[in-house]
Amino acid sequence: MSGRLFVIGLGPGNADQVTPEATVAVRASREFFGYKPYLDRLKLSDGQIAHASDNREEISRAEAALKRAAEGIDVAVVSGGDPGVFAMAAAVCEAVENGPKEWRDIEITNVPGVTAMLAVAARAGAPLGHDFCAISLSDNLKPWGLVERRLDAASQAGFVIALYNPISKARPWQLGKAFERLRGNLPASTPVIFGRAAGRPDERIEIVPLGQARPESADMATCIIVGSSETRTIERTGRRPLVYTPRYAAEASR
Amino acid sequence: MSGRLFVIGLGPGNADQVTPEATVAVRASREFFGYKPYLDRLKLSDGQIAHASDNREEISRAEAALKRAAEGIDVAVVSGGDPGVFAMAAAVCEAVENGPKEWRDIEITNVPGVTAMLAVAARAGAPLGHDFCAISLSDNLKPWGLVERRLDAASQAGFVIALYNPISKARPWQLGKAFERLRGNLPASTPVIFGRAAGRPDERIEIVPLGQARPESADMATCIIVGSSETRTIERTGRRPLVYTPRYAAEASR
Repeated sequence: MSGRLFVIGLGPGNADQVTPEATVAVRASREFFGYKPYLDRLKLSDGQIAHASDNREEISRAEAALKRAAEGIDVAVVSGGDPGVFAMAAAVCEAVENGPKEWRDIEITNVPGVTAMLAVAARAGAPLGHDFCAISLSDNLKPWGLVERRLDAASQAGFVIALYNPISKARPWQLGKAFERLRGNLPASTPVIFGRAAGRPDERIEIVPLGQARPESADMATCIIVGSSETRTIERTGRRPLVYTPRYAAEASR
Repeated sequence: MSGRLFVIGLGPGNADQVTPEATVAVRASREFFGYKPYLDRLKLSDGQIAHASDNREEISRAEAALKRAAEGIDVAVVSGGDPGVFAMAAAVCEAVENGPKEWRDIEITNVPGVTAMLAVAARAGAPLGHDFCAISLSDNLKPWGLVERRLDAASQAGFVIALYNPISKARPWQLGKAFERLRGNLPASTPVIFGRAAGRPDERIEIVPLGQARPESADMATCIIVGSSETRTIERTGRRPLVYTPRYAAEASR
């Protein structure tokens, strides 16, 4: 009989934001597959084994985990944030679809988590308070032209935009291009939130107008939220401003 | 000195999906403001007081909580899911902006949670595995024409779409109209997931092709995920199919 496979979301990085469901799933698993910084967050006990792999080896990692589950081991694939948002759940499904038939018999349990944009939004106010979208800026798996088309469609239709995977050493120019593109569709005063390590001691939240947003403010662990033309900023004395998108919108909104 | 105000996300409804951070914030609060079904989830102790209000009284609820916080009481405004996604965080910001100046001095802490689309996606596979958006179908606060424009923009640009607030007694026709609109832009075979009470004992997950999606499958507590033209279904014997959107996309994707 095959083992179970848990695809676990560990949340944004703060232990207080790991759900009890995720904690139980970690306890129930014997082998763990994931990107090393996520595995390092686990407090494993004797007999639990971590298999670290590189950030970009998602399919081979999923296959390795499915193989061990098929051999009867209870395994976990771990992601930061939520496993279903630009993370391992889709890679596991893809590996199941293309893998041996018996992998379809494996009991797969996805354990949702707090994804980065929710943690960043919480620290900034309520920027996602109205219709919004999430776009990965990585062009490793889709052509850059499609990213630009989506940035246009979303900003022109009045969606707030959360940008995942904004920048990396191998992808240095995409975020600058994205800001440029968005400046063509949105007022220069539109609030942009750079959120890194939200809710952790090393948290860094920066709020700037789109006209002044620079790629240098982000690294690969940053989630960026770009407001719509309706997004507002409330200044406060001695506190970070509150950025929020009202629940209402007028027809003219774009 | 004013009290603190917590805006707490209780997750989709399963106690195992409430973060420890939310549990701590509940313990720290003395008065609670929210829609009754959410307040009913709390296990309050003596001396903690719940003020229930109706679903549509968001601004007056936010004002009542801010008033008590300004009087020195530690208060909590509770939402299901995540408070920043079509929930109370934006209403609290709006009340702060339009309220007395001293409300800007109140320490406001948003506690993020697992929002409905993440819980539903987890149970279905990985439908949100690629770029996606979230749209509230309620036209109480925005004109219906804008909703249709956003449905078109998102489906034509290849976003997976999560629909919040799909239907209610006062808004019976909007969901049918939305499906009709989406059928104009997407193949009839596009998977649609109706998710209700995801992760709870009374969970109901229904997966149908867009061509057969009917508003009767939803109620006001349902979150609906409509795939893109890239979203795939993996059939499994004796298990629910896995619905996922691949991490990659080709230029032609729409």
